Amino acid sequence: MSYTQSHDINTYLPDVTAAPNPSDSSKNAPVGLRMPAEFEPHHGCILIWPSRPGSWPYGAKAARRAFRQVIEAIAESEAVYVLAGPDCVEDAAETVGRVATILPIETDDAWARDVGPTFVLDSSKNLIGIDWEFNAWGGKVDGLYTHWDRDDAAAAAICQALKVPCLNLHPFVLEGGSIHSDGDGTLMVTESCLLSAGRNPQMTREQIDEKLCCLLGAQKILWLPRGIWQDETNEHVDNIAAFVRPGEVVLAWTDDETDPQYSLSKSCLDYLSSETDAKGRTLIVHKLPIPSQPICVQEEDLDGYEFEDGEDVREAGERLAASYVNFYISNGGIILPQFGDVNDSRSVEILSRLFPERTVYPIPAGDILLGGGNIHCITQQIPIGRNFSLKGEHPYA
Amino acid sequence: MSYTQSHDINTYLPDVTAAPNPSDSSKNAPVGLRMPAEFEPHHGCILIWPSRPGSWPYGAKAARRAFRQVIEAIAESEAVYVLAGPDCVEDAAETVGRVATILPIETDDAWARDVGPTFVLDSSKNLIGIDWEFNAWGGKVDGLYTHWDRDDAAAAAICQALKVPCLNLHPFVLEGGSIHSDGDGTLMVTESCLLSAGRNPQMTREQIDEKLCCLLGAQKILWLPRGIWQDETNEHVDNIAAFVRPGEVVLAWTDDETDPQYSLSKSCLDYLSSETDAKGRTLIVHKLPIPSQPICVQEEDLDGYEFEDGEDVREAGERLAASYVNFYISNGGIILPQFGDVNDSRSVEILSRLFPERTVYPIPAGDILLGGGNIHCITQQIPIGRNFSLKGEHPYA
Repeated sequence: MSYTQSHDINTYLPDVTAAPNPSDSSKNAPVGLRMPAEFEPHHGCILIWPSRPGSWPYGAKAARRAFRQVIEAIAESEAVYVLAGPDCVEDAAETVGRVATILPIETDDAWARDVGPTFVLDSSKNLIGIDWEFNAWGGKVDGLYTHWDRDDAAAAAICQALKVPCLNLHPFVLEGGSIHSDGDGTLMVTESCLLSAGRNPQMTREQIDEKLCCLLGAQKILWLPRGIWQDETNEHVDNIAAFVRPGEVVLAWTDDETDPQYSLSKSCLDYLSSETDAKGRTLIVHKLPIPSQPICVQEEDLDGYEFEDGEDVREAGERLAASYVNFYISNGGIILPQFGDVNDSRSVEILSRLFPERTVYPIPAGDILLGGGNIHCITQQIPIGRNFSLKGEHPYA
Repeated sequence: MSYTQSHDINTYLPDVTAAPNPSDSSKNAPVGLRMPAEFEPHHGCILIWPSRPGSWPYGAKAARRAFRQVIEAIAESEAVYVLAGPDCVEDAAETVGRVATILPIETDDAWARDVGPTFVLDSSKNLIGIDWEFNAWGGKVDGLYTHWDRDDAAAAAICQALKVPCLNLHPFVLEGGSIHSDGDGTLMVTESCLLSAGRNPQMTREQIDEKLCCLLGAQKILWLPRGIWQDETNEHVDNIAAFVRPGEVVLAWTDDETDPQYSLSKSCLDYLSSETDAKGRTLIVHKLPIPSQPICVQEEDLDGYEFEDGEDVREAGERLAASYVNFYISNGGIILPQFGDVNDSRSVEILSRLFPERTVYPIPAGDILLGGGNIHCITQQIPIGRNFSLKGEHPYA
């Protein structure tokens, strides 16, 4: 598969007839950048082929099956790029090379959402990547592994491969999974994550708020108190809530007041009910049930892991942070995790109703969940940018 | 003339074999950007076709002759883009369309250095434009004209035309002529301009220093006290001093202690002699004489101007801020202003010695000087960026 594009620029460039209005973007977007919502049009999506033995038991065999299903579903409506290190680049090419472009970039694990760039658009809709510092979800305080150099370098390497300019925001620590944008001036985060001791303890909430608003072109951040119970990321927002359109949110929910998730979800519901977004809209909240039964690590899964020193380990019976909210929005679909639970079909039904123009792709995701995240965590969308030079002849985009 | 470029990206991208070193750019360049020195390789240069009746007497006829010579000299070694508004786009195309790409963008005057973007490179050498706020050299305090909306919008319009991402830095006021970069961690500015009341009076010198270092990838700013006497820009650095290479500077000079320029140049020499650059180098300063006789506005020039209300006016006998330091460094040349003075040949001699690999192009510049600036002021270099999609088949670059 090859991508080509050619530019012809003649004496008179056709698309510049008037200077842009200087007052357009100066007031609320100090650097003129905006993070589009995930439901806005994409050029494509980035994933990483899984191989880390401490995350993916039994040589990542089952995980790769699930990743493949995710990749094939996304590739039906947008370009897909899959990073792979030397140990698995051939396997990646064999398994998904037909529908995806393989980028030979080595990482420490497979969470493109968290280690990839956050793509923003400038006021002329050119794509720029933001390269946050990555410290394995908490560094020395409560990070999940001890070496993350390759993960931290991934965002810059991806931008380099895609020829997209990249802003290096080090030493500000952030993962893509900890922010959602409605593309219309509002971001959504969780306090438990963004104010955690392992990320930017020297900064106040107000400083973090201002920095994110400035870089991502927002005027207001919705600070949910909590996320999903036992979520190892200090409760990333992308596991508890997501925008389906401006002013409208899905929230992971349980009616079982004895479930440890109840109080966490309830605190978010109370917060969202009391807030408006940047445009002054009262938020519509759609409850999306969590699985009816806890999804736990099984004894037989455990044998397949190989943990490094200092790496967070799994234990049999440990409840995993399963949530249907961790779906990916592709151009044409909703790539939705399923857990073999009675609520699987309910989640399909709710999301089909909320995204009537997209196809819901229900994908068994227990083997992604075992790694510590889910479908949204393994993806990172690339919005359409007018400077992006790799689009063109892709059969899917 | 047409520019084309095609990208082929196959399953394995060839130029990404390893992730960049994450520690490379994080320490001294918080956003990973760097402003290359003017003497580093260019893709090309931007100019604006002159037409403003309050700047260019007699229908800009003489000015256009000089601009044409500048453009033709630059076009011998790099691409040239010339902005032109509806009133002069045909004249621009006829006069310089053979060697330059005409961009139909309207501005308020012809100072590409000050209204164009400041181009920087990210850590992967992708080009990004910085769009400072422009307020006609001082806004309501001491600006030179009353309406500058189109000038202020020019940087974004240029980036849009060139498909280069653009960071909007409004409301921070800056002109390109007020900064020089050695590309190696050191910037050079003047206090008289950057601390002027008409630009960013709410900011301290330390805040301005930090902001520029951060955005332009510098670790130290050399703050010259003053510039050229009667320079209407509040004494832009690009008229008094320039880097010829890291650690080496030319400084406009007179030995005549009765000349009002003497104390200004002397304060800069004293400062530079007492300072080192970001790399700890003692600075080598080359004195470049100013014209031996003052260059003044003549009675006959005066009749050709048509001033708007509120516009700074010229008066007969008024000394103009003539300086040989206001040269442009193209890939292959030094485009050097000449004033019909005995020091013209001396300036050619000095710059030929300082830039032995470049051709010195001496160009009569009195008609540019009448507009209020000089050759450096009417140019803005575009460094080579790997994301730049318009290069390729240009016959000159």
